[in-house]
Amino acid sequence: MSKIPWQERPKNCDDVLWRYSENPIIKRNDIPSSNSIFNSAVVPFKDGYAGVFRCDNKAVQMNIFAGFSTDGIHWEIDHQPITMKAGNTKMIDSDYKYDPRVVFIEDRYWVTWCNGYHGPTIGIGYTFDFKEFFQCENAFLPFNRNGVLFPTKFNGRYAMLSRPSDNGHTPFGDIYMSFSPDMKYWGEHRCVMKVAPFEDSAWQSCKIGAGTVPILTKEGWLIFYHGVINTCNGFRYSVGSAILDENEPDKVKYRSQPYLLAPTELYEQVGDVPNVVFPCAALHSIEEDKMAIYYGAADTVTAMAFGHISAIIEFTKKNSL
Amino acid sequence: MSKIPWQERPKNCDDVLWRYSENPIIKRNDIPSSNSIFNSAVVPFKDGYAGVFRCDNKAVQMNIFAGFSTDGIHWEIDHQPITMKAGNTKMIDSDYKYDPRVVFIEDRYWVTWCNGYHGPTIGIGYTFDFKEFFQCENAFLPFNRNGVLFPTKFNGRYAMLSRPSDNGHTPFGDIYMSFSPDMKYWGEHRCVMKVAPFEDSAWQSCKIGAGTVPILTKEGWLIFYHGVINTCNGFRYSVGSAILDENEPDKVKYRSQPYLLAPTELYEQVGDVPNVVFPCAALHSIEEDKMAIYYGAADTVTAMAFGHISAIIEFTKKNSL
Amino acid sequence: MSKIPWQERPKNCDDVLWRYSENPIIKRNDIPSSNSIFNSAVVPFKDGYAGVFRCDNKAVQMNIFAGFSTDGIHWEIDHQPITMKAGNTKMIDSDYKYDPRVVFIEDRYWVTWCNGYHGPTIGIGYTFDFKEFFQCENAFLPFNRNGVLFPTKFNGRYAMLSRPSDNGHTPFGDIYMSFSPDMKYWGEHRCVMKVAPFEDSAWQSCKIGAGTVPILTKEGWLIFYHGVINTCNGFRYSVGSAILDENEPDKVKYRSQPYLLAPTELYEQVGDVPNVVFPCAALHSIEEDKMAIYYGAADTVTAMAFGHISAIIEFTKKNSL
Amino acid sequence: MSKIPWQERPKNCDDVLWRYSENPIIKRNDIPSSNSIFNSAVVPFKDGYAGVFRCDNKAVQMNIFAGFSTDGIHWEIDHQPITMKAGNTKMIDSDYKYDPRVVFIEDRYWVTWCNGYHGPTIGIGYTFDFKEFFQCENAFLPFNRNGVLFPTKFNGRYAMLSRPSDNGHTPFGDIYMSFSPDMKYWGEHRCVMKVAPFEDSAWQSCKIGAGTVPILTKEGWLIFYHGVINTCNGFRYSVGSAILDENEPDKVKYRSQPYLLAPTELYEQVGDVPNVVFPCAALHSIEEDKMAIYYGAADTVTAMAFGHISAIIEFTKKNSL
Amino acid sequence: MSKIPWQERPKNCDDVLWRYSENPIIKRNDIPSSNSIFNSAVVPFKDGYAGVFRCDNKAVQMNIFAGFSTDGIHWEIDHQPITMKAGNTKMIDSDYKYDPRVVFIEDRYWVTWCNGYHGPTIGIGYTFDFKEFFQCENAFLPFNRNGVLFPTKFNGRYAMLSRPSDNGHTPFGDIYMSFSPDMKYWGEHRCVMKVAPFEDSAWQSCKIGAGTVPILTKEGWLIFYHGVINTCNGFRYSVGSAILDENEPDKVKYRSQPYLLAPTELYEQVGDVPNVVFPCAALHSIEEDKMAIYYGAADTVTAMAFGHISAIIEFTKKNSL
Amino acid sequence: MSKIPWQERPKNCDDVLWRYSENPIIKRNDIPSSNSIFNSAVVPFKDGYAGVFRCDNKAVQMNIFAGFSTDGIHWEIDHQPITMKAGNTKMIDSDYKYDPRVVFIEDRYWVTWCNGYHGPTIGIGYTFDFKEFFQCENAFLPFNRNGVLFPTKFNGRYAMLSRPSDNGHTPFGDIYMSFSPDMKYWGEHRCVMKVAPFEDSAWQSCKIGAGTVPILTKEGWLIFYHGVINTCNGFRYSVGSAILDENEPDKVKYRSQPYLLAPTELYEQVGDVPNVVFPCAALHSIEEDKMAIYYGAADTVTAMAFGHISAIIEFTKKNSL
Repeated sequence: MSKIPWQERPKNCDDVLWRYSENPIIKRNDIPSSNSIFNSAVVPFKDGYAGVFRCDNKAVQMNIFAGFSTDGIHWEIDHQPITMKAGNTKMIDSDYKYDPRVVFIEDRYWVTWCNGYHGPTIGIGYTFDFKEFFQCENAFLPFNRNGVLFPTKFNGRYAMLSRPSDNGHTPFGDIYMSFSPDMKYWGEHRCVMKVAPFEDSAWQSCKIGAGTVPILTKEGWLIFYHGVINTCNGFRYSVGSAILDENEPDKVKYRSQPYLLAPTELYEQVGDVPNVVFPCAALHSIEEDKMAIYYGAADTVTAMAFGHISAIIEFTKKNSL
Repeated sequence: MSKIPWQERPKNCDDVLWRYSENPIIKRNDIPSSNSIFNSAVVPFKDGYAGVFRCDNKAVQMNIFAGFSTDGIHWEIDHQPITMKAGNTKMIDSDYKYDPRVVFIEDRYWVTWCNGYHGPTIGIGYTFDFKEFFQCENAFLPFNRNGVLFPTKFNGRYAMLSRPSDNGHTPFGDIYMSFSPDMKYWGEHRCVMKVAPFEDSAWQSCKIGAGTVPILTKEGWLIFYHGVINTCNGFRYSVGSAILDENEPDKVKYRSQPYLLAPTELYEQVGDVPNVVFPCAALHSIEEDKMAIYYGAADTVTAMAFGHISAIIEFTKKNSL
Repeated sequence: MSKIPWQERPKNCDDVLWRYSENPIIKRNDIPSSNSIFNSAVVPFKDGYAGVFRCDNKAVQMNIFAGFSTDGIHWEIDHQPITMKAGNTKMIDSDYKYDPRVVFIEDRYWVTWCNGYHGPTIGIGYTFDFKEFFQCENAFLPFNRNGVLFPTKFNGRYAMLSRPSDNGHTPFGDIYMSFSPDMKYWGEHRCVMKVAPFEDSAWQSCKIGAGTVPILTKEGWLIFYHGVINTCNGFRYSVGSAILDENEPDKVKYRSQPYLLAPTELYEQVGDVPNVVFPCAALHSIEEDKMAIYYGAADTVTAMAFGHISAIIEFTKKNSL
Repeated sequence: MSKIPWQERPKNCDDVLWRYSENPIIKRNDIPSSNSIFNSAVVPFKDGYAGVFRCDNKAVQMNIFAGFSTDGIHWEIDHQPITMKAGNTKMIDSDYKYDPRVVFIEDRYWVTWCNGYHGPTIGIGYTFDFKEFFQCENAFLPFNRNGVLFPTKFNGRYAMLSRPSDNGHTPFGDIYMSFSPDMKYWGEHRCVMKVAPFEDSAWQSCKIGAGTVPILTKEGWLIFYHGVINTCNGFRYSVGSAILDENEPDKVKYRSQPYLLAPTELYEQVGDVPNVVFPCAALHSIEEDKMAIYYGAADTVTAMAFGHISAIIEFTKKNSL
Repeated sequence: MSKIPWQERPKNCDDVLWRYSENPIIKRNDIPSSNSIFNSAVVPFKDGYAGVFRCDNKAVQMNIFAGFSTDGIHWEIDHQPITMKAGNTKMIDSDYKYDPRVVFIEDRYWVTWCNGYHGPTIGIGYTFDFKEFFQCENAFLPFNRNGVLFPTKFNGRYAMLSRPSDNGHTPFGDIYMSFSPDMKYWGEHRCVMKVAPFEDSAWQSCKIGAGTVPILTKEGWLIFYHGVINTCNGFRYSVGSAILDENEPDKVKYRSQPYLLAPTELYEQVGDVPNVVFPCAALHSIEEDKMAIYYGAADTVTAMAFGHISAIIEFTKKNSL
Repeated sequence: MSKIPWQERPKNCDDVLWRYSENPIIKRNDIPSSNSIFNSAVVPFKDGYAGVFRCDNKAVQMNIFAGFSTDGIHWEIDHQPITMKAGNTKMIDSDYKYDPRVVFIEDRYWVTWCNGYHGPTIGIGYTFDFKEFFQCENAFLPFNRNGVLFPTKFNGRYAMLSRPSDNGHTPFGDIYMSFSPDMKYWGEHRCVMKVAPFEDSAWQSCKIGAGTVPILTKEGWLIFYHGVINTCNGFRYSVGSAILDENEPDKVKYRSQPYLLAPTELYEQVGDVPNVVFPCAALHSIEEDKMAIYYGAADTVTAMAFGHISAIIEFTKKNSL
């Protein structure tokens, strides 16, 4: 039996990633208060899986909720949003929380999210059990989004990818990396990846942002990221892959010129924000050569896609920008 | 038998409003010339119902048409737009007419609409029979939209809600009230409701506008209004409810923090303008505790939703912003 | 001796309007609190003149102040802004007041100004003595600027020119007319003058707004208005003239294709808002064939220009757009 | 048997154009590398048909591909983009190629497309066999799109329709005509058709561009063009028809006020760019009175519509703007 | 005596260009109708000089006027704009004409200007005597500005620099070159120079456009061009120099990283459009090593600057971008 | 003799700050390469003063230069920009450097500036002698400007004010504070001061940014900051004062509602960016009750103003927002 949620590639499908046949796995109203559940993060936890979920309620207030699953596909999500206790700061209010990521480092699960503090910035918290959560200092000044932690420390320093932005529907955005000795003070900011020229790879020519927690492979750190093209009728979000150097993770070794997933299904093309696939988490099994990606669809529902790690790496190397 | 069009709440549905199972009730091409029929107004008339309908023709010229129905659901709409005769003005031309509302006051049916006079403003007319219509002076200078009359007079003065705007796809908009002794001169303008802070109720954080004619309840004047969120892929229109003070109708007693209806069905999410539900009229029966709402969907078709008045009031009070 | 402030046309000057040699007549800091004094209105009063002045203070709060002069050129301006008492409304607060105009009708001096009520609209007040002022209902819903009353009534109705706008630095604007039986309710809105095509008269191709109170001449109502061109480095405001029909004042008989005054002096080209001449008042003597215009310069100081009424009319007719 | 692809008008359909029942005829991924195949051009060739197809690959690089068909409906598209050889220029690189049109003149097939040379402009090439293509000088300086050649020469001069634009999602656009003695130098530029006033024909009030190659009829040159309305949620592209004077083709004789086709089917309303129908080619048989139009749908797939030439002409004349 | 207008470099001045001490040489109102006279072109003619001048009149209509001078500094400008006769076209109307350049080729003086034909494009005309002018076909489709002809032909082809733009205050702009066998049809369009990166040369980072007619020197074609920086308070125009290859004039050999002239004098910093120096013409004497540049200042007046050709070349080579 | 540069208040001047009579003290071209010298920082050094100066060169490249003065008014500025050596980072390149501030902490002079690293952010360096400079890690991710260090540490942590922004001419901006244990990693970000409501203090309603290094007074930390109003003709920068709590410096005790200095002199109103006064440094003598402020004028030159500390404090308290 597979160690992670899994479905084999459909026949007649040659794509490096393929969708779960029962997508979306989480519907927009799967908890009573929700307008939409998407852009959510999942990790292995005990015998099953735990997750932090973005649920916008029917006032369209954005917040994060904990949830649990035995198979990674069927989820029980709390009906109340996560309550934070003081971690390394007393400033634990926020105007809104959205787009969480979760990663286990050393002894606990770290959660990062887009945190409303006079505009969007990167919120940080941790939990040991997905019941009690502790909020830390915001990593950065506003305006920032898509903060994603590495699962390991580099020379004793935590490392985070993020995408500096402005205070609106930012029409630009590149991926940067920052380091911290203590999850409180951050520095050594480096530019990692910038948008691609329109003629080379238009789907990622407007803005890009880190998606899933980096996974260490033989080739380096594998990440999925979202790329955006600015069409005459709005932004279209697709999924790309990149491989960062194992020891110098601000160096990009390979980066996919084609997307790996783009909005082509009705639940990705139609919803609160049409034409969005947005990866926030991935489960993987190196030994089984399997990857299961969780992604938000149309800013409305949560869906899954699968792929073989080796094939993803090969694809990324072979089609590198 | 119900006094207004009605369909019981589906099982397993807890929502305060629910959709008609045969939505949309009017299709985009239900008259030969039409590109779309939506944002239309309905009142009880004789033994059945009459209405004024926004039909954009295939040149996408916007105009209003009369129609009749015995059950409020199946409609016969005139194939020619309404022709106006001189009411209290000789200036009865207009560049376009759209988004009508209809209300009976004293002895006649008053129609208000968005009237093209060097830009959008509020047109006023009346009819006794939905065959002969008389046009009055525009209520306001341009630029204005969503003029909705109260069904009664306040100290001898007509009262109108409206939304001052600019000359394009206005990215702002609040609800104001004005008074008139004679349907010709208007004044005593008051701000009634402004957009909500993004973090409190994002679905109504960009602009709001009055929808249905106010209904007098025990708690005050109940209205449905539309609220708009400015997403990265355009405006999304939802429906909220508010209760205004019976005697001082520019005072808001309650206002729904969550929406009551948002675009979640394909005919609301896909069309000439995706992601729009836009209420323009409601039939009600206080004694039966029933409400039937007419709303435009995706600026393309006309749909209906139902609810119990008491439940709507309770919801509005309990979830007040 | 001249009945109005006057200075003869300089030799070698052929212009229809000429500047006062001691311009500006009011400096930016002529009262202790002021950042700037401009766009102000003046009328004959008792043996001399009274006026209402826009003084922005050093917090750049906009307000209106009363002032008096014996010669119309040297002014004593109150150090405190005008305090309003209740006229035909109790709603006498405003977020800001600017760009006043003053006109005597029947028995009192009426003041109109741009009034801050959830955005700019037209405020109305009156005074008998320029010491005690009474505020009335705002004429219109926001957003509006440059409300100018006619000095007479038309069939018992007050008449006002205004310029509907949006809530920012409006990049459009035409002149409309509205009527009121009672200075409380307004209606019968008519479009009077629109911007000119760029190739015909570029200085008035972006927006136009009424300036001085209309003066009745043999040819009709003579007004000065401001016209704006949108250059690559911002708006440039110039002065034009128009003659409206005596009895149907929404009919334009003549309108100057060339400007009569444009920013060419350093105090008009340099200041808080460069390149602005903005007329708000004019004194005139039909019998002496004289006109003295007050205008704001660079949104910073107040200046004067002179002309012969007959020459202005001739110029306007001869160079009509 | 019909000389062009054909399907009879469905019963109960009165529209002047009707869709092919098996639309879309080309899916987004009909060649392995493609993200989408749309806005493509088709001509009779040998016993069947040949075409030039816009295929955006999965890096969303835009390029043109050759294809062949026996019935005009089922297509074999090359898996590699067209490679250009030097025609009348050595400058045969381009940043991207999209939206091709094809027309036979004298002895060869001419292809025009939107060519990336420091921004979009009109690329020109020719082929005799759809295997070997020769690129010529760009017709114009950037920025331009939608270049469409006439199938004949006027006094020895080639004639091209085009739409000057800017370097982004141009919010304006009219149709111009230019002439060339040699497919190298172009001049005698004339404005042919401008956008319609919003109140007359809103669907074509934002921008318009030539679509299909002009067809000579008894009434003159018949073309289909696209028209765009700027809705609050983006551009919506519809199809109109126009008839140009046979000898003075910059004179418009008739132009449809209503559209002939607008996005109403799911594959036109949902896709990479929602709400787009975009005609690029038409096959016709004068003797059979038949027309088969190829159009891109939602910038994602290729679809077909049919009509009778005589009915299209009659419709255009009868409903002329 | 100098063969061109000349004034020696002031002491203590090390700049490569220096201003004429009596600047501006033409004031804004030097003809009765003018609002401003600037961006004008001058050539040697008979015993003195002739020129074509941009005079905006007091309606701010833009037009071009002929003028004559014996010393190149004091000018007699016609009080009526140039009237065009039919050259190689009958289409000789234009909505406006501005920013002329003049060059002698073979047997006549060619004039190019920004011509209003459904927006700005490049107008072409010629004269033998500066009294009778003949208008030719516009060189390009709209939108274009700053067309400048070379004084010689390349392989029998006329050559023109121009700057494709959009229909407003274009925030971008590069210099292109086009060729024509006959001044009627144009093609072989090549990109010559693009804006500089902000960090390398911010004064020319927003847009650039050709200024003076190219002068053949030992190093190649020397031109002055304008460069624009987009400051938070608008565009600032400065003057740069470039040397193009003698035989392949679309190849840039050298291009000045620093500007040679920027707005620092009051008549350049203050006026209808502040902070503009805009070169349109230069007289030169190779044998005397002298250059006299005519430039518009603040879009209001005309000024001159001088320099030694050898020093300008040396400066350009030494400080090349 | 005064310990800092000083000039007594002019007679008839009641302003809390007054200008130096010989302003500007540094002209735009005071070093051979400079286009402008402004927004520069000064500190006491040895027997005189040292400073770091923003000099834009004639390519309009922005860089910082060291300079020295014996009296604080007459300056010798190096002709070459500052060269950085590696401080706590090896990444010492930058695309540009501008708007420096200097402060002495513990044992060295710290310099902060706007540093070009994929957009503007806060650069940090230090020097002991103003000859040798060492560059440290950027404090923050882009996009940020106006980083100002406190002269002391708070519980062992350095403290910096800054203004998060976007990548262009940011139309918003508030003042934040961040802390660092080591000048390498920064955190504990707090919002300190936001823009004022338009109706309360329009001169600071668009954006604000820290100006001078905080000075510890009896009332707390006194700072001068710039505030911006967005006029219809661009940004206008004025100077305000604020007093922050001594121990909790993110708490604002007082903040001036009126400005203390606004652009009213020609050298402040006219220049590369009109209407700018921008404070970057202040010398003070508590015992003499004197303050000398250095400010950039019109982004072109450097000027000075003086005031009595006690009067500034009193003014700020008395006129607090």
